[in-house]
Amino acid sequence: MAVTDIATRTYDHNWRLDPIVRSLLDTDFYKLLMLQMIRHLYPEVPVTFSVINRNHSIRLAEEIDEAELRAQLDHARTVRFTPKELIWLAGNTFYGKTQMFSPDFIAWLKDFQLPEYDLHKVNGQYELHFHGPWTHTTLWEIPALTIINELRSRAAMRGQGRFALDVLYARAKAKLWGKVERLQALPDLVISDFGTRRRHSFLWQRWCVEALKEGLGKRFIGTSNVLLAMDNDLEAIGTNAHELPMVLAALAKTDDELATAPYRVLEDWRAHYDGNLLIALPDAFGTTAFLERAPDWLAEWTGFRPDSAPPIEGGEQIIRWWQSKGVDPKSKLLIFSDGMDVNSIEATYRHFHGRVRMSFGWGTNLTNDFRDCAPFETDRLDAISLVCKVTEADGRPAVKLSDNPEKATGEPAEIARYLRIFGNEGRHAAAVRV
Amino acid sequence: MAVTDIATRTYDHNWRLDPIVRSLLDTDFYKLLMLQMIRHLYPEVPVTFSVINRNHSIRLAEEIDEAELRAQLDHARTVRFTPKELIWLAGNTFYGKTQMFSPDFIAWLKDFQLPEYDLHKVNGQYELHFHGPWTHTTLWEIPALTIINELRSRAAMRGQGRFALDVLYARAKAKLWGKVERLQALPDLVISDFGTRRRHSFLWQRWCVEALKEGLGKRFIGTSNVLLAMDNDLEAIGTNAHELPMVLAALAKTDDELATAPYRVLEDWRAHYDGNLLIALPDAFGTTAFLERAPDWLAEWTGFRPDSAPPIEGGEQIIRWWQSKGVDPKSKLLIFSDGMDVNSIEATYRHFHGRVRMSFGWGTNLTNDFRDCAPFETDRLDAISLVCKVTEADGRPAVKLSDNPEKATGEPAEIARYLRIFGNEGRHAAAVRV
Repeated sequence: MAVTDIATRTYDHNWRLDPIVRSLLDTDFYKLLMLQMIRHLYPEVPVTFSVINRNHSIRLAEEIDEAELRAQLDHARTVRFTPKELIWLAGNTFYGKTQMFSPDFIAWLKDFQLPEYDLHKVNGQYELHFHGPWTHTTLWEIPALTIINELRSRAAMRGQGRFALDVLYARAKAKLWGKVERLQALPDLVISDFGTRRRHSFLWQRWCVEALKEGLGKRFIGTSNVLLAMDNDLEAIGTNAHELPMVLAALAKTDDELATAPYRVLEDWRAHYDGNLLIALPDAFGTTAFLERAPDWLAEWTGFRPDSAPPIEGGEQIIRWWQSKGVDPKSKLLIFSDGMDVNSIEATYRHFHGRVRMSFGWGTNLTNDFRDCAPFETDRLDAISLVCKVTEADGRPAVKLSDNPEKATGEPAEIARYLRIFGNEGRHAAAVRV
Repeated sequence: MAVTDIATRTYDHNWRLDPIVRSLLDTDFYKLLMLQMIRHLYPEVPVTFSVINRNHSIRLAEEIDEAELRAQLDHARTVRFTPKELIWLAGNTFYGKTQMFSPDFIAWLKDFQLPEYDLHKVNGQYELHFHGPWTHTTLWEIPALTIINELRSRAAMRGQGRFALDVLYARAKAKLWGKVERLQALPDLVISDFGTRRRHSFLWQRWCVEALKEGLGKRFIGTSNVLLAMDNDLEAIGTNAHELPMVLAALAKTDDELATAPYRVLEDWRAHYDGNLLIALPDAFGTTAFLERAPDWLAEWTGFRPDSAPPIEGGEQIIRWWQSKGVDPKSKLLIFSDGMDVNSIEATYRHFHGRVRMSFGWGTNLTNDFRDCAPFETDRLDAISLVCKVTEADGRPAVKLSDNPEKATGEPAEIARYLRIFGNEGRHAAAVRV
């Protein structure tokens, strides 16, 4: 007897769309940590986030249908935090700490809605901006990226037969498991999923996360995706992002204020969080400049997340800085999260093993590596370097310099001003694939 | 909302067993063609079929639980041809011919039941015999083999987690599709699935068949599995097997009768079938002896299925025979079906392309190639050389010599007698993997 769930099939026939954003928890954990602080300290600041496609040759507006994109963005605006989700946020332990989120913040989330979006087609690309209070626009970053990336995957697979798709995913699974088997050879590995924003699709990320949980056991410490953490009883992983120093820098009224913005944001952070959340992101305006002027107290923090320098050089630079402060790196943590894949994880692990604590945030190459997997001709399943960045705060342009000039964002005149203040030392261009 | 079909889940909780044989059509098509003739000409002959494991080092009785084996064999005995199946057999066109099966035969199938089995454990192996009328024991061959092979697969996978199994099948799919892509490069390929008996499982064979249908298009001409042919609207493929000459030879009362038995069976066949079903299997007692004494009229048949000689040598030998009879091989068909895989298919195709019509029956290496696919340690997913052969007819021992002495079956004294009559010329031992 063939068994068909008629109600499900009937529902499927008639759905309006297959939603990409199914939950507001389908975001990176650091967004919520940052949001709690933003709401506390900067509740009125208007901040614009903008989607930026660093791969100019990929003409997204020709690959993704505008009506579908609007339907998905509109759908995301209908999603709310559910009672179950808020109860979990309130009652769960994060980084060993209960009540990470205040009751007041949880109550505020209850009515949260993603604000309006501003979408135009320009020269084969989408201009997609989110204007509004920082407390609201900040939560667009991840849904905006997951929607565009998944719509692009769907478009690449549209019209393919059942077997072509079956083989595609079979190869992708075989490929990922080959990576898992290589990582199993690293006994002290500490790794987490950072792949939400660039994922091929929600369902594929979920498979990847479940695969790492099964394949790596306790070496897999969790996922940045809050929804997947909740559903799979994994740790939610993450601390803070470039948007904090970028907004603080944009708000600075003088060059002196700009120069100290990266440290003021850390003071803010320290006032809200402690322990393993005391991780500094040194590269917003160049790691060399950041470390040179960094206050001594920063050496007491748990560690750093170098995010744009090559991992070994970037790690060595930070270790030298710790040593210059008389701190033993063995007790410190480096989190590597910039375009990592098995080769660079192995090399970095072997290079630093025994000298410093390490953790890897595995992103795009975990959740969107379909190279050589399709049994049909396409290059549209290759991940692209899509970001959603602060472009304006309180009417003033925002800038990211990064250790890699290819990852810099902002208006040229303003970038030049930041370079005058922070310097260009230690910055090296490298191709950005993801 | 999570949707669960409660009735199905409840049924699943409580099933007695997950049946391996779900239909009496889950057998090779040639069994039905042969059965129609057997019932017509030899309705009273008692014939014993016996399962023989050529891999003596694989101790099947230690891998497969006897109670499970009995439960599956018992279940197979409860299965009947259903009205839908018989309507299809009666109404379908096989090899371009309507009413391949007579109404009388179809009516007889309606009450068909697999006869009793005789199962013992001996030295870590199962002794499994089927005694009774040839018309009934013959249909045990395929179910007996599929049951043992699938129980062995299930035992190898028992206790593995959901991901280990997911990765196992992902790798197997990726592996098979890699083979499909290689075969796509052979424009005039004609290939069919012959993998029922040695399949990893029913569901896996179904996937393989559907994959070839999608991947090879019209180059995939069908499957020997009648159920899969029906369900997927594919051609049912097959003609005749060694059991015909083996039984006729065993029934021979004199050495002269024995020497002519392989040709009398072809006369019987020709009286029942024509066209593309006129395929001779030359190797039951050695191809060289068979061709030497073959009657001229055999050169008018459609072709041969060399099944134990190396394909290129075996094919060349038959081509020389056709030429000696003044027949152009270009109009003739060779069906290669002995342990073929992509390498040997490519080599054989390239060797004979343009000189003779070719068709490939792809068996074990299509439906049970899991080498290097398991993400856990096991050698129990490797296919074994298991056969179910006629061992006795009307109380007299049956023999198969084959072109490969490693594939010979029968009592040593009787094999020696057959060798005296048919000779040993052209027979060469080669390792039998599947």
